Amino acid sequence: MEILVPFDAIDPKTRLSPRLDDDQRALLARAMCRDVIAAIRATGREPTVLSTGPVEFDAPTRIDERPLSTAVNDRLEDSDESVAVVMADLPLATPDALRRVFDASGDVVLVAGRGGGTNVVLARHPSFRVDYHGVSIRDHRQQARDLDLTEVDSARLATDIDEPDDLVEVLLHSDGVAASVLREFGFEVVADGGRVRAERTR
Amino acid sequence: MEILVPFDAIDPKTRLSPRLDDDQRALLARAMCRDVIAAIRATGREPTVLSTGPVEFDAPTRIDERPLSTAVNDRLEDSDESVAVVMADLPLATPDALRRVFDASGDVVLVAGRGGGTNVVLARHPSFRVDYHGVSIRDHRQQARDLDLTEVDSARLATDIDEPDDLVEVLLHSDGVAASVLREFGFEVVADGGRVRAERTR
Repeated sequence: MEILVPFDAIDPKTRLSPRLDDDQRALLARAMCRDVIAAIRATGREPTVLSTGPVEFDAPTRIDERPLSTAVNDRLEDSDESVAVVMADLPLATPDALRRVFDASGDVVLVAGRGGGTNVVLARHPSFRVDYHGVSIRDHRQQARDLDLTEVDSARLATDIDEPDDLVEVLLHSDGVAASVLREFGFEVVADGGRVRAERTR
Repeated sequence: MEILVPFDAIDPKTRLSPRLDDDQRALLARAMCRDVIAAIRATGREPTVLSTGPVEFDAPTRIDERPLSTAVNDRLEDSDESVAVVMADLPLATPDALRRVFDASGDVVLVAGRGGGTNVVLARHPSFRVDYHGVSIRDHRQQARDLDLTEVDSARLATDIDEPDDLVEVLLHSDGVAASVLREFGFEVVADGGRVRAERTR
């Protein structure tokens, strides 16, 4: 199985800009990707980072400047093994959660992300292609309608870190590099009667 | 196993008031609870609704006007079997997801909710008590530190419907009563380049 981890090396995590400056967003994005790489490796498999630009990860890297769906579909077309695509912004990912995907049966295995995204795709059928634009989980289900489709129900893999509200999930459910980075930035879990959230307390 | 579904009969789902009026919130809350009851029944078990006031569900109901934690802890103390507490605002719950909880080993089985909550508790040890205030998943982990604790990783059970942003998850991942009610209210999945969300289109 080929496992791709797409990474935006140019301007990652823009929706976090209300809370993190450019350098911090870049640091957090790399930290999250490291957590994902480590979780995949702990399942005994080796990921390839599919990056839009030069990056330094301790993992094989393929640079492809094209849009995400194009770059992934190119691999789906060319690869002669099954291909898994695991998003790089899933710092809650654990080996157990990933194993549930890798071990699932089906021509296509999907894990929905919060807000209609598709956080993990495992394609074992040559006809399947991705389209990450819009409500991708709906489109991917539709595309797999004549195939044997399995969906894996995982909160850890559904939790992509896109917006300020997502940050608290990292602090609550991970001890990885991303959680350390957020703590170094001064974030803590705050519960003062309203919604529980990650706030800078220093 | 005694399975409790706590229901707020007085003023449910207040954080949805920016998008739903009082009657609609009450309708949606009852619809979500019906979905939860149906999913539990499909596992072959019978839930009891633990309600703060009179309600008409097709299920045994126990009325307890006290705060949620007090009412639940009263049952934990009195029951001579294991007790599961499944929140009523989990319309994405499926029999499969619930079976993963009911079949899990451990003195205590927890499912975290988004934002630090605890959406399902299964207590098989007489010393365990709940405290739903604040960051409850953290407190429940702490309380179970000397017990055999299992956490079940489920996006379906992690997705409690509290805020307007949560509504789209119902439309995307459920075909139950709550999804029908939202569609009757005029909600549809909208993706116009920004975040995917549920909007009223009529």
